Amino acid sequence: STIGMAAPLAQAAGTITFGEDKSVSVGLGIRSTFTSTEDGATNGSSNSNDFALDSVRLYMNASLNKYIKGTFNTEKKADESIGVIDAIAQFEFMPEFNIWAGRMLPASDRSNLNGPYYLLPFSYPGIVSRYPSRTTGRDDGAAVWGKLLDSRLIYNLGAFEGHNVGTRVGTTPGTSDQPLVAARLQYDFWTPNGAPAFYTGSTTFGAADVLSVGVAAQYQKDGAVSATSTGDYTGWNLDGLMEKKAGPGAVTAEGAYYKYDTDGVIKSEDGTAYLLGLGYIFNEVFGWGRFQPHVRYQKFDRDDNPVLAADKKQYDFGLNYVIDGFNAKLAATYSKVEQTTGKEVDKFIVGVQLQF
Amino acid sequence: STIGMAAPLAQAAGTITFGEDKSVSVGLGIRSTFTSTEDGATNGSSNSNDFALDSVRLYMNASLNKYIKGTFNTEKKADESIGVIDAIAQFEFMPEFNIWAGRMLPASDRSNLNGPYYLLPFSYPGIVSRYPSRTTGRDDGAAVWGKLLDSRLIYNLGAFEGHNVGTRVGTTPGTSDQPLVAARLQYDFWTPNGAPAFYTGSTTFGAADVLSVGVAAQYQKDGAVSATSTGDYTGWNLDGLMEKKAGPGAVTAEGAYYKYDTDGVIKSEDGTAYLLGLGYIFNEVFGWGRFQPHVRYQKFDRDDNPVLAADKKQYDFGLNYVIDGFNAKLAATYSKVEQTTGKEVDKFIVGVQLQF
Amino acid sequence: STIGMAAPLAQAAGTITFGEDKSVSVGLGIRSTFTSTEDGATNGSSNSNDFALDSVRLYMNASLNKYIKGTFNTEKKADESIGVIDAIAQFEFMPEFNIWAGRMLPASDRSNLNGPYYLLPFSYPGIVSRYPSRTTGRDDGAAVWGKLLDSRLIYNLGAFEGHNVGTRVGTTPGTSDQPLVAARLQYDFWTPNGAPAFYTGSTTFGAADVLSVGVAAQYQKDGAVSATSTGDYTGWNLDGLMEKKAGPGAVTAEGAYYKYDTDGVIKSEDGTAYLLGLGYIFNEVFGWGRFQPHVRYQKFDRDDNPVLAADKKQYDFGLNYVIDGFNAKLAATYSKVEQTTGKEVDKFIVGVQLQF
Repeated sequence: STIGMAAPLAQAAGTITFGEDKSVSVGLGIRSTFTSTEDGATNGSSNSNDFALDSVRLYMNASLNKYIKGTFNTEKKADESIGVIDAIAQFEFMPEFNIWAGRMLPASDRSNLNGPYYLLPFSYPGIVSRYPSRTTGRDDGAAVWGKLLDSRLIYNLGAFEGHNVGTRVGTTPGTSDQPLVAARLQYDFWTPNGAPAFYTGSTTFGAADVLSVGVAAQYQKDGAVSATSTGDYTGWNLDGLMEKKAGPGAVTAEGAYYKYDTDGVIKSEDGTAYLLGLGYIFNEVFGWGRFQPHVRYQKFDRDDNPVLAADKKQYDFGLNYVIDGFNAKLAATYSKVEQTTGKEVDKFIVGVQLQF
Repeated sequence: STIGMAAPLAQAAGTITFGEDKSVSVGLGIRSTFTSTEDGATNGSSNSNDFALDSVRLYMNASLNKYIKGTFNTEKKADESIGVIDAIAQFEFMPEFNIWAGRMLPASDRSNLNGPYYLLPFSYPGIVSRYPSRTTGRDDGAAVWGKLLDSRLIYNLGAFEGHNVGTRVGTTPGTSDQPLVAARLQYDFWTPNGAPAFYTGSTTFGAADVLSVGVAAQYQKDGAVSATSTGDYTGWNLDGLMEKKAGPGAVTAEGAYYKYDTDGVIKSEDGTAYLLGLGYIFNEVFGWGRFQPHVRYQKFDRDDNPVLAADKKQYDFGLNYVIDGFNAKLAATYSKVEQTTGKEVDKFIVGVQLQF
Repeated sequence: STIGMAAPLAQAAGTITFGEDKSVSVGLGIRSTFTSTEDGATNGSSNSNDFALDSVRLYMNASLNKYIKGTFNTEKKADESIGVIDAIAQFEFMPEFNIWAGRMLPASDRSNLNGPYYLLPFSYPGIVSRYPSRTTGRDDGAAVWGKLLDSRLIYNLGAFEGHNVGTRVGTTPGTSDQPLVAARLQYDFWTPNGAPAFYTGSTTFGAADVLSVGVAAQYQKDGAVSATSTGDYTGWNLDGLMEKKAGPGAVTAEGAYYKYDTDGVIKSEDGTAYLLGLGYIFNEVFGWGRFQPHVRYQKFDRDDNPVLAADKKQYDFGLNYVIDGFNAKLAATYSKVEQTTGKEVDKFIVGVQLQF
């Protein structure tokens, strides 16, 4: 149902049809890692060695007729139970105009719309991508979205429950209860966005030449509430992605700029953030897959006195081994996290990602 | 597998067959709402504005052969994890005689057997439908049920774990451990019940003329236990449903009477309850759907001194927009809740329900 | 995909194919019981009567191509939410060599590799089968395994997160963070193991003559940590299974010997354990199924002073009614649990197990 680079940007899933335009499809995503953290063991001097199941997702999509669809996705929670991340009632009138209601990704930055499964590197850039959310980047609400101008322009405007920044404490201080408004515009110059709906992916593994720019914003009156004060929440960002065949492969570059503001209510969330990513995928197949080295830099600058504040930045140097796009890849990554306060953390992570 | 009005009373689901009488089917249900409550904001004077994912259910049905089946349904819990609501091992010898074991809906009132998905209004009548349950109206146990007299008479008799009224506190006061016994008889005069098994639905959206009466009861010796005393639990109810084509559509009327008794152990649960519902669905299709205005009244009268007690009643005035029966409908509802103590609550709710 | 006795050792599941070697399959398992425990009621003199949903599992298997597969299985948790038990990224190069990563059953004893669904008796032998695990016998990690010598020899070697014995308390005492290593070798003399991968089942219901022996071990440096001390974890066991057609049916015998050692850090886990099982399945079909009487004995001997310690043993006398192997069976069991300290517990359990 999408154009050009669609294939690499959605898991395959098994689809059961039961009448014209009636179907249920079932898919699966798994991410698992081994992490060695320098001096991370409890004795303080040995490296920690940790196996972890990072993510396992059940994907369900359903169609009742040509216009009415549904989505249900789950994710493992910290307590090892399975949580609801997406549950969407979808009224899809035409590519240009759709209404979704339920729990979903609000209009936000490219990294959040990628989720962990459709990034260029393996791990989520949580230092910079920090719009508030109820769970896993999602919130309850409703949105209109569509693809215009030969699917080159994607718009998305929604109203959500919000109040996910800070601690909402009882009835003091009292607020009127306003929704969080989220909006995003994205324009794809060379190849239309190939991901389903308004979702994104930060590489096509060289399948398409991409030049994409996006701008997103979220605002909620009284959206930031602490025990003693209330402020409006405002976040906005610019993000861009370029991928271009060049030499024996394709180069990928992405960048993002973020501004977060809670009216000073949650000082740890007030600040500016930057992300820069660069990768190169080789066309040559070695064994089952292709190599894609990449680097990423992300930084969060707190607004308050930098002497006191914990600015945070992270460097990732990674190598993807891409067997079947986002459906089967391995990655080895060396990560370095630096904070103004606290000591540097160096990690080596080997990860596997499969989607069915 | 059912007669007459079956189609509107079960979600479609996708079915995978893997041999004669062998299959697994997978379906999905979603309910999402926007609620505006008068003076409901934390400042006490503004309306609250709340988006919520009310329900998301995975439905699985399975068949091993002509006689052995299984059901697994899940529901979102309050902590956003996914919980088990139905898990049933089903021995279905013939329509007239079936044995089910596991977690299921015990014999109970029509509203509980409707669940939230098969009601005439959008929201569950929790003020009156209050048989005890372990989760979402379900309990662990075993039941025999069947359909007799051309599927007009449905019987259901089960034994369940129970002890879900009050707080079961350690070993004091000590009780013998008796099961909860649940029974229901239902007779459908005009059209046989079209829902699967002993389930029900409170409208066929004008598809069939229905006249149905039911009586249910639950009893558990020592089923009500507080910190200081123990009593027997007894609940019973009458419920009726009528739907009849009339004029440019069909009229629906339902009523229920309940009596709950914990031997005075849990005074807040001892009382009498009443439900009355009325609706009219127009045959004329506007756009994708048909309109079905409806009203509902429910009241719970506590047995103890009414001056002290919190009697509770609720009025709902709603308008369904029915696209595909219980599989796709929108509803707008104005609700007013009144209590003897506490202030009146007025809500306006817009909801969407999809099932696949 | 397996040989000989495969059919009875895996649930059927419904499979959706979506291209060559691409598929998703969905299955379901349910176990439900009624238990009457002598003097088990809170009054101390009546029998308790308890209905329980013991288990409900969603099974998903997926295949991306001939070599890359995935597994996702869930189980009901104590809080009635659904938890992840298996989530495996599977690289299956050839029957002789496979690499799995994620959450899975580590190399362990036959009972743990049976899980509750593929035992000869109904209930899990938790008194003796006590390798540490994160959840339901599983842990996060990676393993290589394969079937050699006409699938008669199965090897399995893995590294896991571990640290699941005792209470890992903060940074005192500090340890280096070593993985748990788990290994198992199994040889099947008469008929190759018919279960998928390195899984097992403790009866074929007379379908095959089986003579199987296995040895397994788990070791983790600093794997046992209490508030005051740290020790290495070492566990190992021998297990054997024989099934042979004889007379009007087939006889099944199994045995296991276990040695657990935490360097004295967790004294309640240091000890020796024994399991002995015996069954006989009749070929004759009565109604829908065949009868399989069985007995099981299990004992855990603590290493420390037996006068103080709580040695524990259990006798089970059971009768299976086998309708469709492990996919449909009923069982009635009388169990007696004896401890050095504490009183004897006598239970009568009726259970049903279905898999689809």
